[in-house]
Amino acid sequence: GVLAANGVGGVKNGLARTPQMGWDNWNAFGCDVSEELLISTANRMVDYGLRDAGYQYVVLDDCWSAGRSENGTLVANSTRFPNGMAHVADSIHNLGMKFGMYATAGSLTCGRYEGSLGYEEVDAQTFAGWGVDYLKYDNCYNEGQEGTPLITYNRYKRMSDALNATGRPILYSMCNWGTDYPWKWAQTVANSWRMSGDITDNFNRVDPRCPCSGDEGYDCALPGFHCSAMNILNKMAPYPDKGQPGAWNDLDMLEVGNGGMTDTEYVTHFTMWAAVKSAMIMGNDIRAMDAKTLSILANPAVLAISQDKTGSSAVRRWRYYLPNNDNSSNATAAQGSGTIAEIQMWSGSLEGGDAFVGLLNLGDEAIMINASLADIFVDAGGSHSEEAQSSWDVYDLWANRMPDSAANIIIEANSTSAANLTGVYWNNTEKSYADGVAEEAPVLLGKHVGTVEAGGSISSMVESHGVYAVRLRMRAGPSKRKRDEL
Amino acid sequence: GVLAANGVGGVKNGLARTPQMGWDNWNAFGCDVSEELLISTANRMVDYGLRDAGYQYVVLDDCWSAGRSENGTLVANSTRFPNGMAHVADSIHNLGMKFGMYATAGSLTCGRYEGSLGYEEVDAQTFAGWGVDYLKYDNCYNEGQEGTPLITYNRYKRMSDALNATGRPILYSMCNWGTDYPWKWAQTVANSWRMSGDITDNFNRVDPRCPCSGDEGYDCALPGFHCSAMNILNKMAPYPDKGQPGAWNDLDMLEVGNGGMTDTEYVTHFTMWAAVKSAMIMGNDIRAMDAKTLSILANPAVLAISQDKTGSSAVRRWRYYLPNNDNSSNATAAQGSGTIAEIQMWSGSLEGGDAFVGLLNLGDEAIMINASLADIFVDAGGSHSEEAQSSWDVYDLWANRMPDSAANIIIEANSTSAANLTGVYWNNTEKSYADGVAEEAPVLLGKHVGTVEAGGSISSMVESHGVYAVRLRMRAGPSKRKRDEL
Amino acid sequence: GVLAANGVGGVKNGLARTPQMGWDNWNAFGCDVSEELLISTANRMVDYGLRDAGYQYVVLDDCWSAGRSENGTLVANSTRFPNGMAHVADSIHNLGMKFGMYATAGSLTCGRYEGSLGYEEVDAQTFAGWGVDYLKYDNCYNEGQEGTPLITYNRYKRMSDALNATGRPILYSMCNWGTDYPWKWAQTVANSWRMSGDITDNFNRVDPRCPCSGDEGYDCALPGFHCSAMNILNKMAPYPDKGQPGAWNDLDMLEVGNGGMTDTEYVTHFTMWAAVKSAMIMGNDIRAMDAKTLSILANPAVLAISQDKTGSSAVRRWRYYLPNNDNSSNATAAQGSGTIAEIQMWSGSLEGGDAFVGLLNLGDEAIMINASLADIFVDAGGSHSEEAQSSWDVYDLWANRMPDSAANIIIEANSTSAANLTGVYWNNTEKSYADGVAEEAPVLLGKHVGTVEAGGSISSMVESHGVYAVRLRMRAGPSKRKRDEL
Amino acid sequence: GVLAANGVGGVKNGLARTPQMGWDNWNAFGCDVSEELLISTANRMVDYGLRDAGYQYVVLDDCWSAGRSENGTLVANSTRFPNGMAHVADSIHNLGMKFGMYATAGSLTCGRYEGSLGYEEVDAQTFAGWGVDYLKYDNCYNEGQEGTPLITYNRYKRMSDALNATGRPILYSMCNWGTDYPWKWAQTVANSWRMSGDITDNFNRVDPRCPCSGDEGYDCALPGFHCSAMNILNKMAPYPDKGQPGAWNDLDMLEVGNGGMTDTEYVTHFTMWAAVKSAMIMGNDIRAMDAKTLSILANPAVLAISQDKTGSSAVRRWRYYLPNNDNSSNATAAQGSGTIAEIQMWSGSLEGGDAFVGLLNLGDEAIMINASLADIFVDAGGSHSEEAQSSWDVYDLWANRMPDSAANIIIEANSTSAANLTGVYWNNTEKSYADGVAEEAPVLLGKHVGTVEAGGSISSMVESHGVYAVRLRMRAGPSKRKRDEL
Repeated sequence: GVLAANGVGGVKNGLARTPQMGWDNWNAFGCDVSEELLISTANRMVDYGLRDAGYQYVVLDDCWSAGRSENGTLVANSTRFPNGMAHVADSIHNLGMKFGMYATAGSLTCGRYEGSLGYEEVDAQTFAGWGVDYLKYDNCYNEGQEGTPLITYNRYKRMSDALNATGRPILYSMCNWGTDYPWKWAQTVANSWRMSGDITDNFNRVDPRCPCSGDEGYDCALPGFHCSAMNILNKMAPYPDKGQPGAWNDLDMLEVGNGGMTDTEYVTHFTMWAAVKSAMIMGNDIRAMDAKTLSILANPAVLAISQDKTGSSAVRRWRYYLPNNDNSSNATAAQGSGTIAEIQMWSGSLEGGDAFVGLLNLGDEAIMINASLADIFVDAGGSHSEEAQSSWDVYDLWANRMPDSAANIIIEANSTSAANLTGVYWNNTEKSYADGVAEEAPVLLGKHVGTVEAGGSISSMVESHGVYAVRLRMRAGPSKRKRDEL
Repeated sequence: GVLAANGVGGVKNGLARTPQMGWDNWNAFGCDVSEELLISTANRMVDYGLRDAGYQYVVLDDCWSAGRSENGTLVANSTRFPNGMAHVADSIHNLGMKFGMYATAGSLTCGRYEGSLGYEEVDAQTFAGWGVDYLKYDNCYNEGQEGTPLITYNRYKRMSDALNATGRPILYSMCNWGTDYPWKWAQTVANSWRMSGDITDNFNRVDPRCPCSGDEGYDCALPGFHCSAMNILNKMAPYPDKGQPGAWNDLDMLEVGNGGMTDTEYVTHFTMWAAVKSAMIMGNDIRAMDAKTLSILANPAVLAISQDKTGSSAVRRWRYYLPNNDNSSNATAAQGSGTIAEIQMWSGSLEGGDAFVGLLNLGDEAIMINASLADIFVDAGGSHSEEAQSSWDVYDLWANRMPDSAANIIIEANSTSAANLTGVYWNNTEKSYADGVAEEAPVLLGKHVGTVEAGGSISSMVESHGVYAVRLRMRAGPSKRKRDEL
Repeated sequence: GVLAANGVGGVKNGLARTPQMGWDNWNAFGCDVSEELLISTANRMVDYGLRDAGYQYVVLDDCWSAGRSENGTLVANSTRFPNGMAHVADSIHNLGMKFGMYATAGSLTCGRYEGSLGYEEVDAQTFAGWGVDYLKYDNCYNEGQEGTPLITYNRYKRMSDALNATGRPILYSMCNWGTDYPWKWAQTVANSWRMSGDITDNFNRVDPRCPCSGDEGYDCALPGFHCSAMNILNKMAPYPDKGQPGAWNDLDMLEVGNGGMTDTEYVTHFTMWAAVKSAMIMGNDIRAMDAKTLSILANPAVLAISQDKTGSSAVRRWRYYLPNNDNSSNATAAQGSGTIAEIQMWSGSLEGGDAFVGLLNLGDEAIMINASLADIFVDAGGSHSEEAQSSWDVYDLWANRMPDSAANIIIEANSTSAANLTGVYWNNTEKSYADGVAEEAPVLLGKHVGTVEAGGSISSMVESHGVYAVRLRMRAGPSKRKRDEL
Repeated sequence: GVLAANGVGGVKNGLARTPQMGWDNWNAFGCDVSEELLISTANRMVDYGLRDAGYQYVVLDDCWSAGRSENGTLVANSTRFPNGMAHVADSIHNLGMKFGMYATAGSLTCGRYEGSLGYEEVDAQTFAGWGVDYLKYDNCYNEGQEGTPLITYNRYKRMSDALNATGRPILYSMCNWGTDYPWKWAQTVANSWRMSGDITDNFNRVDPRCPCSGDEGYDCALPGFHCSAMNILNKMAPYPDKGQPGAWNDLDMLEVGNGGMTDTEYVTHFTMWAAVKSAMIMGNDIRAMDAKTLSILANPAVLAISQDKTGSSAVRRWRYYLPNNDNSSNATAAQGSGTIAEIQMWSGSLEGGDAFVGLLNLGDEAIMINASLADIFVDAGGSHSEEAQSSWDVYDLWANRMPDSAANIIIEANSTSAANLTGVYWNNTEKSYADGVAEEAPVLLGKHVGTVEAGGSISSMVESHGVYAVRLRMRAGPSKRKRDEL
């Protein structure tokens, strides 16, 4: 038995009781990092209300290093960080935010700067001394130290122990791309673990550099990179239960706002990262954000799913393959290329007996998708369950999306107070999402769009690459589940 | 060569010469455990004749713990077990039954209580001191100690040695979900081993959380959970020979009576668990059992298959995939979801030259299934075998099923003596199944329903999700097999 | 580069320069072993000309043991071997033959007698002391010591070293079922290695207990047993080059004569074991052999292929899947059961520029099969090769098969001298197959049945489950290959 | 994140900043090696302009050894190398070239000469003492030392350290056939690593001895041999990013000129090896080279792709399977045999914003292939990228191929100066390919054959087994990529 959600859990640092939220520079800026980038971004996160929406962590990724000093400690690039890292940390702390950094469990970072393998203790001390609150710990140049869970566990455990030994609470974000099945063992080591190769800013493209897209993707000898958002989502389907308060699956940083997907695709990407309790780390250029990007990232009804107290991931209940509609005139059959074309239904438990339901259309045409209560509540017993035999209110998670007009006012004014955000925004600093849901704040539930009767179905026309995402709330009050799902 | 059945075997504790029978609280109650639950259930097992049907072990699963004492020993939750564990053990022993407990070969139990990894000796002593007769030993939070058979073997061997060192015979039930192929190495370590992810109360649903449902399910990197009964049965098909007296495949605890399957489905589930010599651990609420549940669990003709002296598992002789009859209007093709739709034929050897035959219909419609003697006896040489060239009496294992009226009398009266159970019940405490079969007790053979001629076939219309299960007995006396199947 | 055939190779014992030939009791007798069985069989092997056909080794399989003495040495069962093992060895040696025994690299043999794991040195000394010439070393109860080539290598290397340390040349036959890829590393450790699960006396049946029958069977997590002959042959197709003089792939003992296949099927089984340079160990009851069995096992034209000096295995050049002709009325599609239905072409190099060609029909109907010289000689360059552009004499390897009448005379007279065996038998004791081929002995070449012109094809109607097996000899003299295949 | 191309990388020896170029005797001569072969070949490489085209290394493969001396050092075969290896090295050095040798990380070389496992330090010293500049280090007879990346890494690291310890810069070419995923860990150990089984002189044939040809070929338990060129190319598709300056994927030595493929096929083979930044080691008999072979190997426009400063591999953007056009009259379906029949599009980045595009036709008929700028520049953002929205000049890499007449003059005169090679040849000794490209030397760009408009496509009729290979150069000047691909 595997207990889904209760008791102690995760590493002993007490962090990430809900999935961490923040920003990391990599997806938008790669190695082009600097003090200015971090501090200006942090300021905009405050201005645009993203800090108060919950995005606490400002994470500096690779390429910040100038190597090791004579006494073996890591040294920051003084051109890019002229005032040193402690100054960056202080500046971010002064904004009421937290500071994250990056290192690698190898001899070199992926960008080929000094790695931390064999330097775990000294580097952890350096990070703690600088005031770091978060460590993304990568996997490049690991000198062959992989191949069984035990080999990889030992390598990542060393930094876990070193961080704990500093006495400073530092969120430990393992980035080992799913190698050696971290979902099996990382819960006692880290606060989150990447479970796939690197995301690319693409919705559902198949790329040979990101293999393991078949039904056996849970056993992947090559994590790869250039993984589309839906490739990663499908890879996560076998282990939704592996996350828990303090220890989360990480589907990689968000691409929302980076330009490679449509608004519809970004909505789907963002919704599903929230639904499966992934770490939620923005990856766009916050300083050049448009209105639609802001209204996705700040959607309170979706963030309330992400930050739900249960920490219970949505589960893929079914998938159907769509007929291949390759438009190539080149040949008659395709494989190992093209796009993922499916429809899927995901559902999951929320605090207080509510449920999340997501109807996904990965196909190229709009399609009517139906989801029965029996399938939505299959874990509770399907058609025989009390849940399937109850009627439910349906709340659309996107119907109250912040209008572009409001978002544009915020962006232009560098302030959330300039716009009327009633009903479209939640300030998590003032009151947590969990408390808001407990108080039935309408902005967190979504827009009531109808009911589904006992034994009935939810149906929606779902646009190409879109998601119909709702919260269900039982009309006759929550039922008691007689058996915890373990 | 692998010798199927003779000589020594299993761990040296002499237990489980036939597959263990008992009850475990997990499937019905999860973490909601207490002294009262165990003792009241044990009493009902006696009252309802289940103890005398062979269900000896009352097993307390996870969540009983309050942690470790200052001297490092495990301590029971004093609210749930106000009189201590030794009292529970004594109470169960006084009913003529045996007491089982639960621990984990990891740092935490699946429910996140103290694990036994690194505490094997002290915990084994504690269990022995409490009078424990059975240990279910789980696999959560194993700190990466897996990846080769040798790593997992060493981890489980430590508790095996510790239990043996106590001097108390304690049945050792490994629950490592098939990780690192326990069927290859656990026979000298344990009395049984789980060979798949956790069962769910569903007959044949496909769930992404329980992958490895394809033809290569014997090599599974993610055991998962929410595995349907038929998913597990198919996973077991490659290694029926791995069990032997003292050491058994464990297909996980029974779901019979928990409400997620139909009566027909529970009959199939129960029959096949018996036929493949799985551990037989009831998982329902015994105190709220209905008549049909009782008449499944107490079926003497099926339990005589389970407890047959040879310990020889039935083997899947063939399977045919049924056409996919997905009723979804959503799309045209499905995979990674839906249900397993096949027909199968299983057969196996029983003591004295008898044979078990099971015709399974996993499809959605009733179907006529035929099984030739050549296929039933393919191991003996198929159509050329003496067996296929003999005629056989056919005994239906379910035709004598206890009537609901009788079962209801037992349940209402809390006593088997209130009902006339002649021909529908066997008291294994008075005389073992093996001795009863040797004496040709009709209740153990099943109902004679016909004969099959030499070279002929067994045919039956089998209802959707049902099994036609029979015992064959040679009309002209048992033949000698010239070669042991090794 | 992997050098196919030259120089040193195998273990340092100098044995098995061609694939070993002999007899083992297991397939026909299992545990029913005795001095009488071995000695009477050895005598019949002499009488029937099998010794002189090359079957040197008489191998006693499992179940001979009575455990260990107080000083830790293995002791033979004194009921079955009343005069001790040294006496058996002496008796066999006196017949001009060699004696083989069985042990296991585990804590127990497969029959659950004392294993040799941890006792390698003392057991090797015991065997050498008894006069043993051959050790079959099995893999049961290996206490989890597997999972990487290194773990398994170390376990089997210990006995290799122990045997070499005795100073007695003992052929070392690894029986680890292909676990951890022995074809990668066993050449320096052993004289042969099993590369699959155990054979069963069936031609081409699919059985769930012997999985890995798909295209990726070279990576098999469960060797299994009840493997049909054609299942094993297909598994061998990826590594024909791994054998070499002194170190051979072992496709398991022959089932010829055991009754589970037709004469045609046994011919195919025997031919292909010879063609791929498997160890050739008879597995039938020699004392109750019929004429057709004898005329298969003694076929000199096929044994000359097996014992060819090059030690170069035939290679599967192509395979075509036949349409599924399942006759079941049960359902419309089958998988994981049924039979292997293909046609295949195998070819390989022989001493002096000759070639072996085998056309296999695994289907249920006779079929015309064509093989072009371009495909037969694809390794030499296909259609552009000198070989494909030459004309060849074709010699049928089965056309000179010993008539039943002659075989019956031998069997009845217990002597080969009673029958006229000119042209149907070869005495390898008098002159080796290699020397005979060098001298162009007609009985070893087969019957000349035609020629194939340059650029042409071999064609034959091949009966169901049959093989058309020929030797090709270049009409214009052998060509020089400009590049060794390495 | 995995950084594609910048900074430090590879082993610390500073070699192979672009993929190494040279010649190795194995493919054409196997074990038939001698001083005369090497020195005469080196002279011809100078005469034919191949040295100046960049082919620096003359590599002696297996079979040169006479074993070890009494003091444990390797000794050369004195018949084949009568003046010793130092003399060979000196002779090659005197020609302005470099000398490579061969050894094995096992107990025997593949040709069964003395291996270097356990002799790493002494053998590295011997090689350095002889003046060796390059070591090909093979994988045969590795005594089971594989199974996890760590085991194999440790074995190959020992020779890496030993070579570095000599103080002589020796290019370290790992030849471990992709075992244990060297692309994950070899960049800090070696200058190149083989990533598949051995190549055979065949374009696209499927052979059971080279399995793992399916979509999951990146996880291959049996590297095998007899791998066709296109089999290897497909296996490389998942990890184009793993190479970098100093550390390259090695797709095995070229077969160009060995006679098993057509001229068209060799062009495709050579083009793609260059495009994916494989090591470029010729494998033909240089002394008997024909005109077409020379004009392939010396093609400056293709070598400029290979030696491009970025070291960035082309990536397979899509593949389409062609309908199976098996002409066999034998049966109706084929698998595990036949040929790879696909069309593919590869593209990649070049220095200065240029791009490589290759349209491959592996089918049996000519076909029109179209590649959109959106697909060519998918990594930059596809249809939304600045690249796809720019217009490009198209330069054909083969249109300026050296005429047979010119090549024949060179071959006959043993001198490049005899022919007018203006516009068809580049002397890399005088000026590097990189400098030439920077100066826009027309011979390196290829022949301008047209333009492609913004949003447009490249189209070409591609002959069977051919490639249409072009360089694209932006008409409006190179765009800036805002994010490094890491």
